[in-house]
Amino acid sequence: MDKDATDAGQSAEQTRALAEDGGTIRFGPDQPLRLDSGASLSGIEIAYRTWGVLNADRSNAVLICHALTGDQHVAGAHPTTGKPGWWTQMVGPGRPLDPAKHFIICSNVLGGCNGSTGPASINPETGKPWGLAFPVITIPDMVRAQAMLVEALGIETLFSVVGGSMGGMQVLQWAADYPERIFSALCIASAPRHSAQNIAFHEVGRQAVMADPDWRGGEYATLGVRPEKGLAVARMAAHITYLSEPALQRKFGRELQRDGLSWGFDADFQVESYLRHQGASFVDRFDANSYLYITRALDYFDLAASYDGLLAEAFRKARDVRFCVLSFTSDWLYPTPEGRAIVRALNAAGARVSFVEIQSDKGHDAFLLDEPVMRSAVAGFLDSAASARAAK
Amino acid sequence: MDKDATDAGQSAEQTRALAEDGGTIRFGPDQPLRLDSGASLSGIEIAYRTWGVLNADRSNAVLICHALTGDQHVAGAHPTTGKPGWWTQMVGPGRPLDPAKHFIICSNVLGGCNGSTGPASINPETGKPWGLAFPVITIPDMVRAQAMLVEALGIETLFSVVGGSMGGMQVLQWAADYPERIFSALCIASAPRHSAQNIAFHEVGRQAVMADPDWRGGEYATLGVRPEKGLAVARMAAHITYLSEPALQRKFGRELQRDGLSWGFDADFQVESYLRHQGASFVDRFDANSYLYITRALDYFDLAASYDGLLAEAFRKARDVRFCVLSFTSDWLYPTPEGRAIVRALNAAGARVSFVEIQSDKGHDAFLLDEPVMRSAVAGFLDSAASARAAK
Repeated sequence: MDKDATDAGQSAEQTRALAEDGGTIRFGPDQPLRLDSGASLSGIEIAYRTWGVLNADRSNAVLICHALTGDQHVAGAHPTTGKPGWWTQMVGPGRPLDPAKHFIICSNVLGGCNGSTGPASINPETGKPWGLAFPVITIPDMVRAQAMLVEALGIETLFSVVGGSMGGMQVLQWAADYPERIFSALCIASAPRHSAQNIAFHEVGRQAVMADPDWRGGEYATLGVRPEKGLAVARMAAHITYLSEPALQRKFGRELQRDGLSWGFDADFQVESYLRHQGASFVDRFDANSYLYITRALDYFDLAASYDGLLAEAFRKARDVRFCVLSFTSDWLYPTPEGRAIVRALNAAGARVSFVEIQSDKGHDAFLLDEPVMRSAVAGFLDSAASARAAK
Repeated sequence: MDKDATDAGQSAEQTRALAEDGGTIRFGPDQPLRLDSGASLSGIEIAYRTWGVLNADRSNAVLICHALTGDQHVAGAHPTTGKPGWWTQMVGPGRPLDPAKHFIICSNVLGGCNGSTGPASINPETGKPWGLAFPVITIPDMVRAQAMLVEALGIETLFSVVGGSMGGMQVLQWAADYPERIFSALCIASAPRHSAQNIAFHEVGRQAVMADPDWRGGEYATLGVRPEKGLAVARMAAHITYLSEPALQRKFGRELQRDGLSWGFDADFQVESYLRHQGASFVDRFDANSYLYITRALDYFDLAASYDGLLAEAFRKARDVRFCVLSFTSDWLYPTPEGRAIVRALNAAGARVSFVEIQSDKGHDAFLLDEPVMRSAVAGFLDSAASARAAK
């Protein structure tokens, strides 16, 4: 996913109206995180932001789960880049997720590089960054850490858990693992498992990172170098999968950077220059080992696998949760059939689900852009869920 | 394109029946090759193979144009790898292109690394490999070199010019530049120009090569090193585009290499191992700078651009050539709409063209595999063209 794709700004007034808060929560050694790999992490830290105010009966909390290269800075300006948050189209005053109504939480995923414990964190046993000694983590591990945070914030039941792309996978995992702790669930542009092609693209990215001699077997942070070239190539390859072929053609076509060809290997075409920029700006804000770990978590994701291959079984205890699934017609990373597979499984499990396939030629990253149909579908779903909850 | 994808073998008898011949032709300084860039190459060498015998009236010659990573070893065993030629399904006794009927020629493209002049050749001015001092070449440049070879072989008119993928682009260029020298033209799984997405994937590959410190600004051959890791990553990314998503899913799905996950960054999934193998085996047979130059030639390809953007104008003088255009339903590198654009332009130019879209879920590389419909379509087209020529 591409948090740079955001195309909306915010005024200073809007920023104040967000009532932004948050910090980093550290769990003591009495609360170790048990991982799917069998390992256990002690003393984990989870960095998070919140917007709005938790109401008296604690019934308005919404957890947003971010995508591969996203972070907790959903709304408001990003402290490092100064850019607006990655989902200002959806989160803010008058938006479907509104701090005036909702207490909105987003935390950096376990394994990330924006404040939560990950491979760049200090390994207490060595006093140096973990590097590849960090245990491989999974989507369920990320969700387990989020559940610890939500509990620490004093929230028994989330009004909704919401996410796109990898965030959508976390939403599905919440429904499978903590159905009694969520009232509704919104899964956008996502899939119940990674396909062979998804894995293939991620493997290209990992090989690009690991081929960079400055990666140094993952020990680059200790050695004071960074595998920037490899990580940039990984980002470039991934970025192509976030956009549709028609969107690339419409946006760039064969337009040149300058008058005439260079007859060399400079960026002749605008699409080359765009991709190079995507690669170069990404390495400024992301850690290479985090990229390896999070792509691995995505590739390992196969929700049905823990249920003898029956996806419906994953949702068997979630039949009281209200679901909404959205997909985009031109998304070839997690195409509509993946969304339909989720819907079929929810139907088979007897859960309530609404499904919207949104016409868009913008590819996977449409979920980060200003898509009016997405906006109204999400607003409608959340309003309906709020009414249902009030009637209880 | 993927010459490793070939899936047919040949018996010793079949190999003898091929009547294979060929060598390397060197053009003297009196025959310099004028390039689209404005540069000129003197003393070029073109490596080629032939199968069958040129008949008395020199009317049975067929030129096969190879794809990005192909070479002149269409049939018979490859001298380096020992593997069968890359198109034994189509070329051989009883095949649509049959040495008993046709005099079949294939030459390594200009810029290649299998015997024809390219960036790995010796620059006569320095006595060292050209490296990046080699001029950027184009598809028309490649075709110009082929035309010199065909003339040197004493052939005035080719019965047919045939190719898939980049080979198909050369076929179209032949029709535009030398319509009086071809009787028929067969263009398979190709496009009249490179799209933004095509360019994007190639740029990822070039950046992967150039990010490898062993690339050394293109001087690696002189310095006795090879950018193998970067070239392998480039090949892995490209290879995904040669296969369809359904084919990857059917062939590999989420199948593991071993029982259980590694919980690390080894190749857990079969698709990862397959891609790594594709990368590793490619660097044994291909030169990194050739990869840069040939991908650049592909990205620069836009046949209509020389005709004020009107593709039909490119074929205006080719209305007496008999054309056949084939596409594959699951080819997302050069999808069917690209083939249709060629057909529409040929129709507008008043040329005779047959078009077949072949049902296949194997993606772009279907043209290298044993596809019975392709085989019969090509055989039918060539038979019909032969009858038409005999009737003249």
